[in-house]
This record gives sequence, structure tokens and C-alpha cells, in this order.
Amino acid sequence: MRTTAATGTTSREDSCAAPASTRDRLLDAAADLFYREGVNVGVEALCRAAGVSKRSMYQLFDSKDAVIAASLDRSAPGFQDSMLPAPDDGRPPRERIMHVFEQLESLAQTSGFLGCPFVAAATELKAPDHPASLVARRWKNELTAFFRGEAERGGVRDAETLARQLTVVFDGSSARTVVQAQGLDGLAVLTARTLLDAAGLRENA
Amino acid sequence: MRTTAATGTTSREDSCAAPASTRDRLLDAAADLFYREGVNVGVEALCRAAGVSKRSMYQLFDSKDAVIAASLDRSAPGFQDSMLPAPDDGRPPRERIMHVFEQLESLAQTSGFLGCPFVAAATELKAPDHPASLVARRWKNELTAFFRGEAERGGVRDAETLARQLTVVFDGSSARTVVQAQGLDGLAVLTARTLLDAAGLRENA
Repeated sequence: MRTTAATGTTSREDSCAAPASTRDRLLDAAADLFYREGVNVGVEALCRAAGVSKRSMYQLFDSKDAVIAASLDRSAPGFQDSMLPAPDDGRPPRERIMHVFEQLESLAQTSGFLGCPFVAAATELKAPDHPASLVARRWKNELTAFFRGEAERGGVRDAETLARQLTVVFDGSSARTVVQAQGLDGLAVLTARTLLDAAGLRENA
Repeated sequence: MRTTAATGTTSREDSCAAPASTRDRLLDAAADLFYREGVNVGVEALCRAAGVSKRSMYQLFDSKDAVIAASLDRSAPGFQDSMLPAPDDGRPPRERIMHVFEQLESLAQTSGFLGCPFVAAATELKAPDHPASLVARRWKNELTAFFRGEAERGGVRDAETLARQLTVVFDGSSARTVVQAQGLDGLAVLTARTLLDAAGLRENA
């Protein structure tokens, strides 16, 4: 299995006996290419990278916009998994929340990290109703829901607000990495910790 | 004077007797177009929007990349001014810092807001050494420097860290607006306030 640091996309080519389907191959190449170069990459370049003909692409998808949405959705679980703790790791809520920021700090040090793929896609598309913007919103809301669930479990009174604040720290820290082109040096962890302290989510809650 | 809500770009066409120079006209149109549609807008569309020939453009700038950088730099003071308080408003540091987040909340409610123009450009370019990425970094650092100056004036011990945290909140809140396609509903103000409280920057400091 080869996992790209940036999107968490997993390519199955190395591990499966059966070749990846044309659809999977197209979407994996698209997720990788759109993340690295932007959603404005042309259909020609995309099909070349995927080793798929334009005809095949248009048999599978109505439009390039549909490919952008489907590829983001396909790569999303990999990115999410690389950020979130295992569902059953038994750690207290505060530690499970901090796990996300520790992972972000770690990812931000890798050269392939170009920010949160959901925020990047929405920023580039500039169209809130684009199918890929809807995918981005849905997955970003999943992260907020994770924070909220843990905050509730930890007894935080306004868990929804804390969850939104933590998402802001996640996305602002990612943006910092993109703009400064360097790691976070503990800033995301420190800021998240400050907000957890202020919300009263203690170590052993 | 016509000021676009999004970039704070000021067009001089309406107020000055002399017509805007070709360079200014090109850069104003570029800043507006790149912000609204992305830096991948082609040279043809750009020249059409600016009413400038491609030949004129290439007489003024070596490349489209140079136009992106120069247009971002030209629109930056307008955006910055729309966010920062007047230098001599006499208010205490905490209020001056909060002014920025109040302005962001207000801007985030306007339909033309597509996130911080510096973060958007860096996110789209995906090239830390691109001349426009350098412009974006420089202007983002100006915001952090403003926060740091006020924090120092307010006696905050680690003013640099607080300034970076506030920048994270600014950019994460902007990202939220882009991803959710809605206003902030007080989230940026609340989160900034929490960090100022934690850093001990009080109302009358």
C-alpha cells in the first residue's frame, strides 16, 4: 500500500492482485493531481496521469466537475483516518481531540502538505454549490462532529461552539503552513490546548 | 471611489480626472478577477476584463506570474486597511485587536467574501517560491506584526505566540466562511477573545 502524505489517498495497485478499476484509477489520480496542482488541471493532463482515455472518463462521469467531487470524496476517508484517533482507543476525550492536532503538526512538517484538501478545494472552486464544495463541507462537518462528540463526552457545556473553534484552529493552522511554507512548531497543539482549558475540558475528563 | 468588499481594491476611475494608467487598470482588474475566479484565469480573459491588449500587458510585465504578484500587492493595502483600526485611534490594545475580528465577522457576511486574499492566492498557487506567494506571506506577516505590536503594548509576555494564534483564528475563520458559505455568527470574535483572556490581555490593559 502506498499512502500519499498529503491526501491520505491509498493506491491499491501495489497490494491487490486484481488491477484497480478504471474508475478507481481515475479518481485516485484525480485526487492526487487536484491536490498537488489544483482543481484547474485540465482533462487532458488528468487522463494522461490516470492512464484513462477521455472517452472512458466521460462514460463514467458527466463532467470534470463530477470527477472533482467524486475524487475528493474518495480520498476523504484516508485523510480523515490519518487525522482522527481509532474509534476504540479508550483514551479520554481531551487526549483524543489533541491527537488530531498532533497529527496535523506532524503532517505539516512533510513537504507534500498543501493544506486541508477540503478547504483547498472549496477555496479554489469559489462556488459554494459546486458538487465538490458540498463534499468538502460534508467532510469538514465530520471533523467538527468528531470534536463535538468528544467535547460532549467530556462534559463541556457548549460542545458545539468548542467544536467549531477547534475546527477554526485546525484550518487556520493548515493555512499557516501553506502561507509560511513551514511546519507549525507546536502552534496548533498549543492553541487547541488553550481552548480546551478555557472550555474546562481537563486531562482526565 | 468604488471599493470592492472582497479585496478592498480601490478603483480610481470614478474619482480622478485623469484616466487610470494602463498598469493600474490591468492590476485592478487582475486583483478583482483572480480573487473572484482564481489565479488560473487566463491571460485572454484578464486582458479583456482590463481592456488592455496582451501586447501592452507583456510590455509592462514579464509574465502572468508577475501580474499575479503585482496585483495582489496592489490590492493588499486596501484589504489590510479594511481590517485594521486607524493607527491613531487611541483605543487600548485589546480593543484594537478585537476590531480586526469584528471587521472579519462583518466582511464574512457579504456575498463577495471568498476568504483572505493572501491565503487564497497561496492555496491556489501551491508554490511557496512563486512571487505572489512571497507577497502573500509578507502581507500575512504584517497582520501578525500588528497583533504582536498590540500584544506587546498590552504587556503580554509571549506576544509573538499570541500574535500567531490570532492569525490562526483569523485564517481559520476565513476558511470556515469559504467552506460553509455563511457568516461566522460571532465565532471569530469569541475565539479571539478566549485567546486574549488566556494570554492575560485585559480590557483596560
